[in-house]
Amino acid sequence: MTYTIPVELTSSPKPKPAHHNQAFGTVFTDHMFILDYDAEQGWHDPRIVPYQPIQLDPAAKVFHYGQTVFEGLKAYLTEDRRILMFRPNKNIERLNLSNRRLSIPDLDEELVLEALKQIVLVDRDWIPSEPGTSLYIRPFVIATEPVLGVAPSLQYKFMIILSVVGSYYAEGINPVGIYVEPKYVRAVVGGVGNAKTAGNYAAGLKAQDEATAKGYSQVLWLDGVHRKYIEEVGSMNVFFKLGDTVVTPALNGSILDGVTRSSVIQLLQHWGIPVEERAISIDEIIEAHRSGTLVEAFGTGTAAVISPIGSLEWQDEKLVIGQGVTGELSSRVYDAITGIQRGILEDPFGWVIELPLADAAKHS
Amino acid sequence: MTYTIPVELTSSPKPKPAHHNQAFGTVFTDHMFILDYDAEQGWHDPRIVPYQPIQLDPAAKVFHYGQTVFEGLKAYLTEDRRILMFRPNKNIERLNLSNRRLSIPDLDEELVLEALKQIVLVDRDWIPSEPGTSLYIRPFVIATEPVLGVAPSLQYKFMIILSVVGSYYAEGINPVGIYVEPKYVRAVVGGVGNAKTAGNYAAGLKAQDEATAKGYSQVLWLDGVHRKYIEEVGSMNVFFKLGDTVVTPALNGSILDGVTRSSVIQLLQHWGIPVEERAISIDEIIEAHRSGTLVEAFGTGTAAVISPIGSLEWQDEKLVIGQGVTGELSSRVYDAITGIQRGILEDPFGWVIELPLADAAKHS
Ligand SMILES: Cc1ncc(COP(=O)(O)O)c(C=O)c1O
Ligand SMILES: Cc1ncc(COP(=O)(O)O)c(C=O)c1O
Repeated sequence: MTYTIPVELTSSPKPKPAHHNQAFGTVFTDHMFILDYDAEQGWHDPRIVPYQPIQLDPAAKVFHYGQTVFEGLKAYLTEDRRILMFRPNKNIERLNLSNRRLSIPDLDEELVLEALKQIVLVDRDWIPSEPGTSLYIRPFVIATEPVLGVAPSLQYKFMIILSVVGSYYAEGINPVGIYVEPKYVRAVVGGVGNAKTAGNYAAGLKAQDEATAKGYSQVLWLDGVHRKYIEEVGSMNVFFKLGDTVVTPALNGSILDGVTRSSVIQLLQHWGIPVEERAISIDEIIEAHRSGTLVEAFGTGTAAVISPIGSLEWQDEKLVIGQGVTGELSSRVYDAITGIQRGILEDPFGWVIELPLADAAKHS
Repeated sequence: MTYTIPVELTSSPKPKPAHHNQAFGTVFTDHMFILDYDAEQGWHDPRIVPYQPIQLDPAAKVFHYGQTVFEGLKAYLTEDRRILMFRPNKNIERLNLSNRRLSIPDLDEELVLEALKQIVLVDRDWIPSEPGTSLYIRPFVIATEPVLGVAPSLQYKFMIILSVVGSYYAEGINPVGIYVEPKYVRAVVGGVGNAKTAGNYAAGLKAQDEATAKGYSQVLWLDGVHRKYIEEVGSMNVFFKLGDTVVTPALNGSILDGVTRSSVIQLLQHWGIPVEERAISIDEIIEAHRSGTLVEAFGTGTAAVISPIGSLEWQDEKLVIGQGVTGELSSRVYDAITGIQRGILEDPFGWVIELPLADAAKHS
């Protein structure tokens, strides 16, 4: 099946940033992708148009009932100027899982993949090439029906916007201090924690604010039922190296099935490093720290890829991990994944897809 | 302190509905209130303008991270054409509690009250007068900063829109069938369940869909930790009459502090009926049903005021309550509250405020 996505090019292209030290998600490209949904036509009218404000009725359901889902992935420019995307199919699958949890109609996964490719190609001159930089791709769905009844919307917009992102580690990859959150809960089994939906992020703002005020970089979330099992760190999945084994919380229904998490697990298995997906209590981590078996800890996510954890604060006790410097495994995983993402290292997993530049010529 | 709220009247008033059988939240009035926030000016530029679409950048935080809160209250037209609002200060207080939980800057409560009054007065000709009808008032805050970083927005809009609502009980007050939800969880202690924010409603859509498909009107939510304590029914608080005592779940942090709930409690106390706010397990309710002490059950909320529960389905057992007809207490509470709201009954609690029509003259 092929899709023709009409493109309306901007008549007033914006200047591209000269440097890439901007904050995450502040600089957007010249175009965006839109697809509409209504009950009669289903998803219809895919198009690429100049980046512009959207007009919504103030009663649009997204403003009131948060019926919205999103994704986040990246495109990279290689040294020989090929454009690569990292595992877009994983994000597209997860987008539909999120849609189902939020009572949003499924998207056609082939059309979404085609849209991702086309919008990136239209704005390919925006993809930065400096080490560590990339084009962040944000697909999202919003409920637009102007009705205040609490029920799934009968109208939606699916959109893709693109943001130029600088190097997450402009000053080198550095471990961060983490606050283990005792009071606030991000999500609970039976809720929407395993969907990539707005409410999970809103629920985390206050805890993050308070942790920032205390001088920590992120919070480590514990489960909402027992308040002792480790879930995620900020908006990242989390891994611990205990002795020679790497452990990460199992997909229990309240955490996100991260694409980076899945890639790290595959990579570790490929390297013959034992990795376990299971329940991990904060007590187990404290015990491991005391006995000297807690060797490394790191978060994983699209934005930072790997974020080493230098210390954990739990109930007024501060656990320094790996002398507070980036661990060997963290570096090795970071180098391997970013190397594959940028086409510098071989990709034994078939993770990377290359965008055919020939196709792009049509639109420019 | 007085506030001057500039008013720009519409040049193309919409036709008012001839009947009031429209679905809830589908018919909006001619005007809306807006107030902006940015980090430099704080909340500023209050104004009443024609009801119109809002323009937002596609990166506006509300679309991605759900940083938004809302309220819901009503204005009524009495038989002698006075305009009454029911306990607006309770909603304004709760709005700021929600704001704090969602890391949104506090609103000036006096300004919000003034805005509520002014916008209702500007659109006073829209307030329906038939029994059971009212003007539903929806204040809400949305995060508008176009930045994809997960952090509180530095820009917001506070708006008030008004919707003409027909009688909830056009065919008489009738008990509904409720499905006790075994799988999905609305909110958990430590989360945002006690704030009136979008994510709580998004989290409930799927359960409501499945209950509707099974033929139930709403779900009864159990707590996310033990999965046995009763929380709310749909988007309402819930009360049970057990023998001569009325019980309702305590404000434990995961349920909303409903204005109707608080009014019902005050009313029962005023009548000398014992009322307890405490943890109530579903087992206790089943036990009470078996032993014949479960006399009545009803939900409470601004939309329906009182919604009698005719039956509960729990694990394939169907409990019929009060022979499935509206109970005596449900009717008594309903009549008392709606009577006070419409200025038919005396208001011993000071719940009702009357809008000074003289002030309105200025704008028309
Ligand atoms: C809550 C949450 N957990 C984990 C992740 C990591 O997922 P991914 O590796 O797919 O980016 C994300 C997204 O970045 C997230 O938002
Ligand atoms: C989740 C929830 N619970 C309870 C209520 C009842 O609150 P109130 O009586 O203030 O309308 C509402 C709002 O109507 C609600 O949204």
